[in-house]
Amino acid sequence: MKPSETFRDETPWDIGYDDDKLHEECGIFGVIGAQQASAICALGLHALQHRGQEAVGITSFDGKEFYSQRGLGHVADNFSTQESLAEMPGHMAAGHVRYSTTGGSGMRNIQPLYAELAGGGFAIAHNGNISNAMKLREQLVRNGAIFQSTSDTEVIIHLVATSRYPTMLDRFVDALRMVEGAYSLVCMTPEGIIACRDPLGIRPLVMGKIGDAVVFASETVAFDVVGASFIRQIDPGELIQVDFDGNIHTHRPFGQPPARPCIFEHVYFSRPDSIFDGRSVYSARKEIGVQLAIESPVEADLVVPVPDSGVPAAIGFSHQSGIPFELGIIRSHYVGRTFIQPSDGDRLAGVKRKHNANKMIVEGKRIVLIDDSIVRGTTSLKIVQIMRDAGASEVHFRVASPPTGYGCYYGVDTPERSKLLAGRMDVSAMRDFIQADSLAFVSIDGLYRAVGHEQRDNTRPQYCDACFTGDYPTSLTDLARREDESAQLSFPVNKVA
Amino acid sequence: MKPSETFRDETPWDIGYDDDKLHEECGIFGVIGAQQASAICALGLHALQHRGQEAVGITSFDGKEFYSQRGLGHVADNFSTQESLAEMPGHMAAGHVRYSTTGGSGMRNIQPLYAELAGGGFAIAHNGNISNAMKLREQLVRNGAIFQSTSDTEVIIHLVATSRYPTMLDRFVDALRMVEGAYSLVCMTPEGIIACRDPLGIRPLVMGKIGDAVVFASETVAFDVVGASFIRQIDPGELIQVDFDGNIHTHRPFGQPPARPCIFEHVYFSRPDSIFDGRSVYSARKEIGVQLAIESPVEADLVVPVPDSGVPAAIGFSHQSGIPFELGIIRSHYVGRTFIQPSDGDRLAGVKRKHNANKMIVEGKRIVLIDDSIVRGTTSLKIVQIMRDAGASEVHFRVASPPTGYGCYYGVDTPERSKLLAGRMDVSAMRDFIQADSLAFVSIDGLYRAVGHEQRDNTRPQYCDACFTGDYPTSLTDLARREDESAQLSFPVNKVA
Amino acid sequence: MKPSETFRDETPWDIGYDDDKLHEECGIFGVIGAQQASAICALGLHALQHRGQEAVGITSFDGKEFYSQRGLGHVADNFSTQESLAEMPGHMAAGHVRYSTTGGSGMRNIQPLYAELAGGGFAIAHNGNISNAMKLREQLVRNGAIFQSTSDTEVIIHLVATSRYPTMLDRFVDALRMVEGAYSLVCMTPEGIIACRDPLGIRPLVMGKIGDAVVFASETVAFDVVGASFIRQIDPGELIQVDFDGNIHTHRPFGQPPARPCIFEHVYFSRPDSIFDGRSVYSARKEIGVQLAIESPVEADLVVPVPDSGVPAAIGFSHQSGIPFELGIIRSHYVGRTFIQPSDGDRLAGVKRKHNANKMIVEGKRIVLIDDSIVRGTTSLKIVQIMRDAGASEVHFRVASPPTGYGCYYGVDTPERSKLLAGRMDVSAMRDFIQADSLAFVSIDGLYRAVGHEQRDNTRPQYCDACFTGDYPTSLTDLARREDESAQLSFPVNKVA
Amino acid sequence: MKPSETFRDETPWDIGYDDDKLHEECGIFGVIGAQQASAICALGLHALQHRGQEAVGITSFDGKEFYSQRGLGHVADNFSTQESLAEMPGHMAAGHVRYSTTGGSGMRNIQPLYAELAGGGFAIAHNGNISNAMKLREQLVRNGAIFQSTSDTEVIIHLVATSRYPTMLDRFVDALRMVEGAYSLVCMTPEGIIACRDPLGIRPLVMGKIGDAVVFASETVAFDVVGASFIRQIDPGELIQVDFDGNIHTHRPFGQPPARPCIFEHVYFSRPDSIFDGRSVYSARKEIGVQLAIESPVEADLVVPVPDSGVPAAIGFSHQSGIPFELGIIRSHYVGRTFIQPSDGDRLAGVKRKHNANKMIVEGKRIVLIDDSIVRGTTSLKIVQIMRDAGASEVHFRVASPPTGYGCYYGVDTPERSKLLAGRMDVSAMRDFIQADSLAFVSIDGLYRAVGHEQRDNTRPQYCDACFTGDYPTSLTDLARREDESAQLSFPVNKVA
Repeated sequence: MKPSETFRDETPWDIGYDDDKLHEECGIFGVIGAQQASAICALGLHALQHRGQEAVGITSFDGKEFYSQRGLGHVADNFSTQESLAEMPGHMAAGHVRYSTTGGSGMRNIQPLYAELAGGGFAIAHNGNISNAMKLREQLVRNGAIFQSTSDTEVIIHLVATSRYPTMLDRFVDALRMVEGAYSLVCMTPEGIIACRDPLGIRPLVMGKIGDAVVFASETVAFDVVGASFIRQIDPGELIQVDFDGNIHTHRPFGQPPARPCIFEHVYFSRPDSIFDGRSVYSARKEIGVQLAIESPVEADLVVPVPDSGVPAAIGFSHQSGIPFELGIIRSHYVGRTFIQPSDGDRLAGVKRKHNANKMIVEGKRIVLIDDSIVRGTTSLKIVQIMRDAGASEVHFRVASPPTGYGCYYGVDTPERSKLLAGRMDVSAMRDFIQADSLAFVSIDGLYRAVGHEQRDNTRPQYCDACFTGDYPTSLTDLARREDESAQLSFPVNKVA
Repeated sequence: MKPSETFRDETPWDIGYDDDKLHEECGIFGVIGAQQASAICALGLHALQHRGQEAVGITSFDGKEFYSQRGLGHVADNFSTQESLAEMPGHMAAGHVRYSTTGGSGMRNIQPLYAELAGGGFAIAHNGNISNAMKLREQLVRNGAIFQSTSDTEVIIHLVATSRYPTMLDRFVDALRMVEGAYSLVCMTPEGIIACRDPLGIRPLVMGKIGDAVVFASETVAFDVVGASFIRQIDPGELIQVDFDGNIHTHRPFGQPPARPCIFEHVYFSRPDSIFDGRSVYSARKEIGVQLAIESPVEADLVVPVPDSGVPAAIGFSHQSGIPFELGIIRSHYVGRTFIQPSDGDRLAGVKRKHNANKMIVEGKRIVLIDDSIVRGTTSLKIVQIMRDAGASEVHFRVASPPTGYGCYYGVDTPERSKLLAGRMDVSAMRDFIQADSLAFVSIDGLYRAVGHEQRDNTRPQYCDACFTGDYPTSLTDLARREDESAQLSFPVNKVA
Repeated sequence: MKPSETFRDETPWDIGYDDDKLHEECGIFGVIGAQQASAICALGLHALQHRGQEAVGITSFDGKEFYSQRGLGHVADNFSTQESLAEMPGHMAAGHVRYSTTGGSGMRNIQPLYAELAGGGFAIAHNGNISNAMKLREQLVRNGAIFQSTSDTEVIIHLVATSRYPTMLDRFVDALRMVEGAYSLVCMTPEGIIACRDPLGIRPLVMGKIGDAVVFASETVAFDVVGASFIRQIDPGELIQVDFDGNIHTHRPFGQPPARPCIFEHVYFSRPDSIFDGRSVYSARKEIGVQLAIESPVEADLVVPVPDSGVPAAIGFSHQSGIPFELGIIRSHYVGRTFIQPSDGDRLAGVKRKHNANKMIVEGKRIVLIDDSIVRGTTSLKIVQIMRDAGASEVHFRVASPPTGYGCYYGVDTPERSKLLAGRMDVSAMRDFIQADSLAFVSIDGLYRAVGHEQRDNTRPQYCDACFTGDYPTSLTDLARREDESAQLSFPVNKVA
Repeated sequence: MKPSETFRDETPWDIGYDDDKLHEECGIFGVIGAQQASAICALGLHALQHRGQEAVGITSFDGKEFYSQRGLGHVADNFSTQESLAEMPGHMAAGHVRYSTTGGSGMRNIQPLYAELAGGGFAIAHNGNISNAMKLREQLVRNGAIFQSTSDTEVIIHLVATSRYPTMLDRFVDALRMVEGAYSLVCMTPEGIIACRDPLGIRPLVMGKIGDAVVFASETVAFDVVGASFIRQIDPGELIQVDFDGNIHTHRPFGQPPARPCIFEHVYFSRPDSIFDGRSVYSARKEIGVQLAIESPVEADLVVPVPDSGVPAAIGFSHQSGIPFELGIIRSHYVGRTFIQPSDGDRLAGVKRKHNANKMIVEGKRIVLIDDSIVRGTTSLKIVQIMRDAGASEVHFRVASPPTGYGCYYGVDTPERSKLLAGRMDVSAMRDFIQADSLAFVSIDGLYRAVGHEQRDNTRPQYCDACFTGDYPTSLTDLARREDESAQLSFPVNKVA
């Protein structure tokens, strides 16, 4: 019996996300050397809001003390007032938005996490997932460590705290050598900021400047919004220290391993106006649409995107195929809580609240629907139905990514394989399931072509594409232990509210 | 001295609307004969949320009592729980969303308004504006009437209450004969629902069916979402009664005057998936883009819509001109409260939070920007700037409506004429103001062509287009009185919180 | 069918009052001529909080506009911040605390009520009950009046609004001539304050001065707290006008009828440090204890008050009888919401949360318990039980008022007669019910003696003592109508939330 | 530079306590073997609410998991609903109310604290103060411990976590041997409850039974309210284990040292209906009043208590002196937030909101005021003033404890010595300060006599009376370190919100 503590926090408001999409779990932001670091951080996190809407936290440092504020909901709900930012003084700040993290949704798990170590305060914001966190946690607890959260990120802090190396940097590298998985980190100590990316660079992290201040963010769009210029991405396995005098030191404790960045950033996670891995996300998506039109052409009257994520690929598909692009589905800006479904109402009212057919446009037409991906398939089925209800004569479904058949263990919320439509059936069965006249996905090589490669290098893939291929670039210690034991988790991660 | 009472209500959350747009002030919905009338009403109002985000109210009737609930904020914030709807039983309901109404934003002014009259309860939801409300109110108060709100709509209730006619219908028509201005109304009495539209049909109102139930709404999109079929629009000056046995009686107390529906519903107010005045709003907007390309062509590399309202016209413009359509501006879905602007941040951070340039797309390109209208011009100026900051070599601005030079007195929130850019300067000066390389608006006749007429009939215009032409189709009694007196309002409408 | 509107307001927090007491329904306060009228008003209402804990409202006037704020809960919860009072400027203010009023607990019913009449704004705060309100309301509605609340007080406003007299004073007196029942009123018009008391002076109202400002309050204790000096009580049937120049005009439109003030103010309602009807409430209560000891002596070891209301009478009883006064029951200061009763907990835990036996004091002793009154008897029974559980050898119950056998229709919340213990049984049966060794009440003449009279003058009683005698000093029109009709209320007062 | 993290939690509502009193910092309660342990715990804590009103927490255990809920404010605000207790299942629970604790008021510091140790979950509720907590904390942090709160109590958890002993009991005793100061503890492990008291028994802790369940509480009054029978107090230095089979094991790891319980529990902290150290608190207080009348008699007309804490001593004084006891000061039950003081209001309005003179009683009389203690003296001064304003001819002040001249380091919130009136001046100067006609305190020997001793045994005092004598029964390591260093705290206890 290993009891754990269950906490009641305020219920988060229903965040109205599309639960038939994969969800990026986090966005991180850091700034050092700016007058109003916490205000810049809030603005930067707002630009990363699409990476996580459940909770937000900011920690700042004024040269003497660290100040933390955390809240459920959006950045704007928590950090838009003069009062909230006045309580967060200092020239350095780091922040975090999350969708949800391993370890549950309690207030205690909202990042940045903070600890007072022997060498001073230490704050950490993490995007990714430590895939041997449970094993490390058990070892640490056996040696007397007391965890304050159920987050995998806290493992890193305890490893730093108990490291026997003398300097903070050595202790931090010592800790990183023990963890496996995906991690882009922005940490703060009384000496300055440390930003790093795991040896494969699975999760993104970029560096910019705003005047003399140095900024870090998950995506370049955050730099646009705060008015920073984009310098470069952090390399895989690179660790960058910035102190209060503006000195930037770079370290490569893992050498220069070949990168495996997440290809789904191009498919869906990143904002189209971001630059990921040296390439415009918007252009990559349009090019996927081009590849899709080449690989799986269809005779039709209109190309209709599933808004908003299908729009760039639909523009590409339309351009390549010559079939006109039309807004055949209108998306409401006012999603939110689920409504009571009246018994005498429409069986599709739920989906129409968000996506309504533009009936007079689609009536009697052959439609090519373009979406970025299919996860469970439940929304795709309903979208096909509303097209048919609106009078479409044919509905052809084209997907701007390969079939998503495998779970992600690197910080993305994925349903179990048995709930992924592509984990359960082949493309033909999927077409039947969503009741389309035809269904096609871009090929894995087509996807690689769209992002600038000849094809996938199957011996040394250029990206992490495990969700499409099942080819995981790291070992998955906790998962293996669970499967070995065919037993309950000794640390009941998912029960904790 | 005519004192009025000032109330403190909860502050509405900042609704994040674009304050450089005109704002439709209301949406209304009614249903009779359905099992869960209030749930259908909530869903219908949700589909009309774009017509008003500040407050929402629903009143239902269960054959014995009326039940009212009102709240600030969105429909989903107030009416999405089983509990809230369980407190609203009955087969008849009417509701209202509003942006703000004449008379201030207090809880007391949230509609439907309700009064207990000698003949029973009476609830009213109103879209529009009574342009002689102040004069009527003064007369009523002199005779002992006590107003519970500062809304112009309450005038109608008091006119009904004090009418000497015997039946509710006669008293209602008696009241309508005394008011001038724009009104689409959905009213409830213990006998059933009454829906009507002012003699010119300035504001929209449509009728549909959902099984045996009859529904009324400001726009057809509400019928799509609740699963109702669209029957027809209510005619100008028409009054329709529906009782609990499903009998529908139509009355035309004003005869059949020629209609003057608001043309701005086509330009911006209605959702693109609605049908207004017999025509697809989306198609009308695309066609305005076509007319604009014909009237004001330009050599350029890309057609870029100001999202989202500029998108249909941009598609039309692109189609007509052959210039590729690209998402050169990305709109954030997470607007909301205003953020603190850090002193060392970007001067355009505010606008970029909502509209960010897709830099790698627009860099070095000649851009045609398409927006639906220009009101104050402040946002247009910033949009041009972010295009230039992103490296656009030329920025040409094309507007899918004529210059908006006059205020609206029919239920739309318009700045004073002195704050309307087109009220202050000609097109050439406007181009200088927004710093575009060229600026053109669709002509008034081009607009009429886009919605199916040869041209505007200047002796008997087919639409109310007063915001473009200053040609108001009704007298404006209260306005005239104010200007006559060159004095303070006797009823201090705008001071009341 | 006469429908009414049901509103959902925020639920008031459980006010933790003793529901086995009669409850004064309201306290009122007014001030004119003071710099920070609303702050003085808030402080004065706080001192009257014992007269009503459910809701509070203040209206102020700054020479131009009236400002109103209302809230559920205590004065301190609503009016203790600088912000809330800054929104209430002006030199005149009136306020109201209430327990609950005829017409339900909605926000709309919180006083002061306000209306904009032809002559300007009119605000009214009322302590009492209009016993022909329903009849008057029906007449007014038939003539086109629209009520905004379900409060009996609103009837007065409509009577003023529709009066044909020229001046506000005449219209006000005209209205008062039509109402019957109990009313102490503080009203505000743009000309100043009007305070008055019904012809029998059933409910209290006193006048004071604080510098040049004139203040009115339900009890003198409010003057102590705001630092005002007590001038005199308002006479029964007297109407006092105070204008902004400090002029005080007194009117007696009903002549000088003999007074019938509520004797229960001495028994329980008023604070012991108030002066009511020219006499210290504390001294009156002590003297009732003396009378009780004379009339119903008992051999015992200790006199134990039921705290806090029984304390003064217990001191008097102890003094007269020579039996020592001891705190044999300790009252908790932390009452509030009802707790979940654990199944394996104490059956008396609920009452002990509030009143716990001081076991080591009462063990083995003969106890005389002194309480101010017995209403339902349920608490009395439990108090006797906790005394016995604590080891008291005898428990004698002495009550500092006569048996409460009749309901009050003058603004006091009374259970129906069938739920009043003295409405159902005689003293001997009551003793059995509460399981005391003996039970005695002070006689009605004893009570009159304690407040300075030889005895009750049965032909022309000096007080309203209807709750003890059933001798109601006014006709009760609405009650008679209800009983006549043996039917449902045409206006469903009690259903309205 | 040793940074610490500052957190923003919700502001507690102003708890309306008298800030001129010493404040007991905590009350604790535990129960094992009951059906609805958390409901019993909530009720028990409610009865201990006077020991701490700022925050409350309960942790329960259902045989598998621990459940924790914490909140700011009163027990009734947090634990009175079925829902809140349904989330706290199990047969064992412990809880805590606090006034404030060393380490600030953040949510993280609300007890019970919980940690997941290698041997399972561990929850702890603490009344007292560890006087070497800072020194221990620094050592633990140097060894890699990460603290989640700023509470001194957390030191105990880390000492248990890092102890090398094999069993939980041995590790717990190992931890206790390292701490110094005052501690009554109720701890929970998966095996059961552990309750203990420090070797001197400075803070109280009692044991009772309710059916087969065993309960622990700071005071016996909690047993009265939950319906438990009082068994005995926990001895100083005693440690009691109770398992789920109801077995009770007692341990005395510190032998049987002579006790030094806090004498201020008799003076003020404990409720008068509690039994402390074998004696009725109420009787002790009355007897102090007797001693005071013997030691410092005065000719006067009335004995007036400062309510409510002065009442028992006033009864004793009255009895001994023969001077009548009267409620010359009336206390309001509705304290709460501080009100805005109107500029033209009474300079004493603040104090009168809480304590108002019963003017008609005290006018022209010679008064003996009885209060339990004088801390800063500011309230005493105002109380004397309101007596004089009310017309008292003489005001003699008698205090039912010796002068409070020294701070408490054992879990009581005391002002610095320089703010204690008796720390700054002698009795004669104190009399001048509070402007009384005479002032006297009970002597230290008089106090000991009142609680049953001949006199204070100055070689081996029977109580901890350090606040009166400066004779601290333990070393004060952290204090000594601070004074040695004449420097800033290395752990900035007081800055942390």
